[in-house]
Amino acid sequence: MFGQLVRRSAQCPCPGRSDAGLAQLGQDLLEDHRELTRLHDTLRGKGLKGACGTSASYVELMGSTAAARSLEARVMELLGLQAFEAATQTYPRKQDLVVVSALASLAQSFYKFAFDLRFLQTPAIGELSEPFGTHQVGSSAMPFKRNPVSAENVCSLARQLAALPRIAWDNAAHSLLERTLDDSANRRSLLPEAFLLADAIIERTRRVLDGLVHTPAATERLLATYGVFAATEKVLLEASRAGGDRQVLHEVLRDQAMVAWAAIGRGEPNPLPELLAGDARITQWVPAGRLPGLLDARAHVGDAPERARRMAAMMRAAVDERVGGTEHGDRA
Amino acid sequence: MFGQLVRRSAQCPCPGRSDAGLAQLGQDLLEDHRELTRLHDTLRGKGLKGACGTSASYVELMGSTAAARSLEARVMELLGLQAFEAATQTYPRKQDLVVVSALASLAQSFYKFAFDLRFLQTPAIGELSEPFGTHQVGSSAMPFKRNPVSAENVCSLARQLAALPRIAWDNAAHSLLERTLDDSANRRSLLPEAFLLADAIIERTRRVLDGLVHTPAATERLLATYGVFAATEKVLLEASRAGGDRQVLHEVLRDQAMVAWAAIGRGEPNPLPELLAGDARITQWVPAGRLPGLLDARAHVGDAPERARRMAAMMRAAVDERVGGTEHGDRA
Amino acid sequence: MFGQLVRRSAQCPCPGRSDAGLAQLGQDLLEDHRELTRLHDTLRGKGLKGACGTSASYVELMGSTAAARSLEARVMELLGLQAFEAATQTYPRKQDLVVVSALASLAQSFYKFAFDLRFLQTPAIGELSEPFGTHQVGSSAMPFKRNPVSAENVCSLARQLAALPRIAWDNAAHSLLERTLDDSANRRSLLPEAFLLADAIIERTRRVLDGLVHTPAATERLLATYGVFAATEKVLLEASRAGGDRQVLHEVLRDQAMVAWAAIGRGEPNPLPELLAGDARITQWVPAGRLPGLLDARAHVGDAPERARRMAAMMRAAVDERVGGTEHGDRA
Amino acid sequence: MFGQLVRRSAQCPCPGRSDAGLAQLGQDLLEDHRELTRLHDTLRGKGLKGACGTSASYVELMGSTAAARSLEARVMELLGLQAFEAATQTYPRKQDLVVVSALASLAQSFYKFAFDLRFLQTPAIGELSEPFGTHQVGSSAMPFKRNPVSAENVCSLARQLAALPRIAWDNAAHSLLERTLDDSANRRSLLPEAFLLADAIIERTRRVLDGLVHTPAATERLLATYGVFAATEKVLLEASRAGGDRQVLHEVLRDQAMVAWAAIGRGEPNPLPELLAGDARITQWVPAGRLPGLLDARAHVGDAPERARRMAAMMRAAVDERVGGTEHGDRA
Repeated sequence: MFGQLVRRSAQCPCPGRSDAGLAQLGQDLLEDHRELTRLHDTLRGKGLKGACGTSASYVELMGSTAAARSLEARVMELLGLQAFEAATQTYPRKQDLVVVSALASLAQSFYKFAFDLRFLQTPAIGELSEPFGTHQVGSSAMPFKRNPVSAENVCSLARQLAALPRIAWDNAAHSLLERTLDDSANRRSLLPEAFLLADAIIERTRRVLDGLVHTPAATERLLATYGVFAATEKVLLEASRAGGDRQVLHEVLRDQAMVAWAAIGRGEPNPLPELLAGDARITQWVPAGRLPGLLDARAHVGDAPERARRMAAMMRAAVDERVGGTEHGDRA
Repeated sequence: MFGQLVRRSAQCPCPGRSDAGLAQLGQDLLEDHRELTRLHDTLRGKGLKGACGTSASYVELMGSTAAARSLEARVMELLGLQAFEAATQTYPRKQDLVVVSALASLAQSFYKFAFDLRFLQTPAIGELSEPFGTHQVGSSAMPFKRNPVSAENVCSLARQLAALPRIAWDNAAHSLLERTLDDSANRRSLLPEAFLLADAIIERTRRVLDGLVHTPAATERLLATYGVFAATEKVLLEASRAGGDRQVLHEVLRDQAMVAWAAIGRGEPNPLPELLAGDARITQWVPAGRLPGLLDARAHVGDAPERARRMAAMMRAAVDERVGGTEHGDRA
Repeated sequence: MFGQLVRRSAQCPCPGRSDAGLAQLGQDLLEDHRELTRLHDTLRGKGLKGACGTSASYVELMGSTAAARSLEARVMELLGLQAFEAATQTYPRKQDLVVVSALASLAQSFYKFAFDLRFLQTPAIGELSEPFGTHQVGSSAMPFKRNPVSAENVCSLARQLAALPRIAWDNAAHSLLERTLDDSANRRSLLPEAFLLADAIIERTRRVLDGLVHTPAATERLLATYGVFAATEKVLLEASRAGGDRQVLHEVLRDQAMVAWAAIGRGEPNPLPELLAGDARITQWVPAGRLPGLLDARAHVGDAPERARRMAAMMRAAVDERVGGTEHGDRA
Repeated sequence: MFGQLVRRSAQCPCPGRSDAGLAQLGQDLLEDHRELTRLHDTLRGKGLKGACGTSASYVELMGSTAAARSLEARVMELLGLQAFEAATQTYPRKQDLVVVSALASLAQSFYKFAFDLRFLQTPAIGELSEPFGTHQVGSSAMPFKRNPVSAENVCSLARQLAALPRIAWDNAAHSLLERTLDDSANRRSLLPEAFLLADAIIERTRRVLDGLVHTPAATERLLATYGVFAATEKVLLEASRAGGDRQVLHEVLRDQAMVAWAAIGRGEPNPLPELLAGDARITQWVPAGRLPGLLDARAHVGDAPERARRMAAMMRAAVDERVGGTEHGDRA
């Protein structure tokens, strides 16, 4: 999973914004990875503490509290699990709350990615899309359809997982004097459901990433039409440096941008470069000849690629550290 | 707060069950303390990354990505805050989700304590109760009332806090391409509300703990009536050891317990000791003379006091480590 | 279900408070019944509106919008279901939200009943308890236990159902331009789960009601100990009428009640009647001889029995109207 | 509000899909309107039932249950509010749950509208946008920006309101024996917040609707590019009628559509009409000359306009019935 994102992130030909977006997704997943790893490594069981958590019968049977504790230690070692220091009839249900919350947080990261992807796959955008089988049928009534079914599936399941932490909160908050069993019936579905939903979400996203389709022409088209707006920041910067009043320049850019939007709305190419080149309030500070270069958004990505690579390296390191390189090596 | 719980835990004269209960509350709060401390220490800001998170304008202004990064580092050092490696228009809203979830988990611990306390304050139980001022009026219509108003207040506010993580999940999940601002309006109340609710819950509980009233007579009464049931475990154990069939003994104890419950229901003292002393199926394995000793629940607390003390020590250590002993010293 | 509650309500020998409590439960269930009946009777389907909800292909096939509408009307009549006037790719998911919310509201009524029952079954109260089979084993380690397993089960499942409306809200809110299918995966479990949980909750409660155990001795004991407090309202009333200052009397009653609580805490009988009979601030307005009569809570139930009977009649009428008397007759 | 939607719906020049969409929004709001109206008209208060809901003191004061009931009736008539038949210390909190759930359902309708609008305002779509003041500044760093701030605000607040029904559920479910006051602290913000959020959401949406901007050129552009896909349904229909095999035709349309999508992705005009005109598998059933007419999506809207008008009439009637035509008349 991580390996794939790392590879994607490295290959992705989109300019800064997408780098930043994918890098942020990676960063979010890295957080989830750290939290789930931490929880996995510190998961505890009730231990051998008898019906009320006092170990009374074990102390009785073994002859001393030390002997009962030692028995508990040996059993838990065999299970490869730590024991809670204090427990009652059950282990504290806060652990369930924390685990289910971490899974819901993981679901949030994937929801966001899938939601973004569905937006980017909208025909009018069309930069990225999930794989669509050659013989896959989108709709029996609409032969032309290529729905982002996997991304929709991920959002749907993530939304379901997002509802579960509250059940765990209730169980933990209402375990009255630690003896109520009103968590019993719902935990039978709550815990497996939370993990199964997380599994399905991860698996589905992995398949999406494996076959993710990038349409460079769409990126080109969008950059040509809209990138120029983002690049006006450089014009504003250079004109201010040259002595222009930032407030006035901002207003000029805003007014001309409004004219440009209207043209784009009519399906025309973005006229902003020409509008600025013909506007003396701009050209008195920035020669018209400099404008085409300044207005190329491709050159206005700051340190986004650098940060994206650094994030990819951090993710790679996290995977390597965790699995000794095997999972990462296998998949990427 | 912790200091008070530690002190309470040490003074509490109740037998094993209460020790285990308070120790488990302490353990839950210790978890919350660790998690909130960890989050506090790793909280990050967006840093200086400009409108889209690419630092494009800073790179432009400073001349290089290295210089922009160095500027960010200096500013964040002044703020005493780390910066996210990757950000976009905003820092990733997952951080809000994780923080608000941790506060809701804290609220869960306090809810459980307050809920338990309300139960223990019920007149028919009456072991513990929150402080009630000499001139406090419980109800204008019912002069005799001493409502657990603080504990109810804690539950009420905790319930409100429990609803907030979901708003944070939504904000994080729907920050479409990191540029939507649909988190803006609700974050203005979400974040302060979460912290203010947590504050109110902690303050209210602190006051409850400061004046917590234990009624030893109630504990005595409950132990005399119900403790004997719990202590039958020792009879079962000793009779089994002596050669009795556990299945048969279990049924005998169950049948006699049912008779005892009926008597208690009629307001009579628990007749179970006499019933067992007169039942040959028991006395053939355990001499009747041993029964009074075995049926004293006070002696059947296993390692609960030990674990409670260990937990108190762990909490004390956590507080000491965090505040160099000052907060703990001040309050306890 | 309703028939049973009606019967219970009529037989219940408890004084006013319990009448009011059961009547209020009945009132809540009556609300749920009305709402679910209303929703059942107005449930709508998408109808025959084609892939996008425009009926375009049906209009094409049938030759006119009138003919397409008439076809839809005939099909829906066969299905015994109304059609939404407007639909798109799907019927509006608000319907799911409203239905699942109504089921969650039903679950709330049952949760409250089960929660109350668990409290009333606590040994120290013991007024009501759920049926416990002669050979039922409460716990393998604790032969004496009679856990309210059914009531705990109801609370557990109700808590799970309470989490579902939010998923339905999300589905409805995010059905972007009515063409997203991100509700698809979770609706497959959301809708059946909501109904199955409701079924399980109702069935379990029905069994509890069928075998509900009332322990009159416990009610007597509680009334003798605590009822007298409630009845002080009559003393306050009569003393005020006789010319006493309500504020002063309130304080007297409050002070003596505090003394009485302390005695009860020590396991003694409630001394309040004697305390008041010996307090001149009371007896100057109410002769000591009147006090025993005034302090009998049994006579201080106002119109609660009347209201409970009226509520039972309203429930009976609702059931009769709905099922022509058959369900009600069968079960009660 | 309704009047505005009705007017918008009538003026809206978009083809079937938008009609269906707006009509469905209207239908959802009509549901909300009916439900909130119903709740408004049946809202109940506790009435005059004293501290425990038994009216005991009123019966005492007035001399009979009939007199107490008559007093309650008179007071409630003055308040213009009905009284619950049964109440306890408080009126049943289910009413809060039902009211807050209905407000959350209202928020869901507005969320969906605002969410759709934000999507339609995306530059690459651009069909609809919220009003943007001539001197409004979208962003200090990005002078060209016209964010859908109102729609984002509506989504943000609706998300907050969506979290509130759960608090009301908790309050109702846990009002233990109707005497707990653990709802008290949170109801002070829960109820006003729910109504204030609903107000803000409605007001903000009203302003959006008042100034809603439709860009017909964008609709034209989108119809020219994508409408042709939707219209292939008519080709499929006519070719099938003429004797073509639906399965085969579906595959042909699917294959050619995939070619067309690729061209669109490269920024070319949709070549589907030419592709189909040149494909004998189509033209053997539908003469090429018929294709331009069939592929005009404008003519493939079925009964959507009719249904939209009917829905507008239903909304108008609901408003007229409610306010005697005044609100509707004032605003539309």
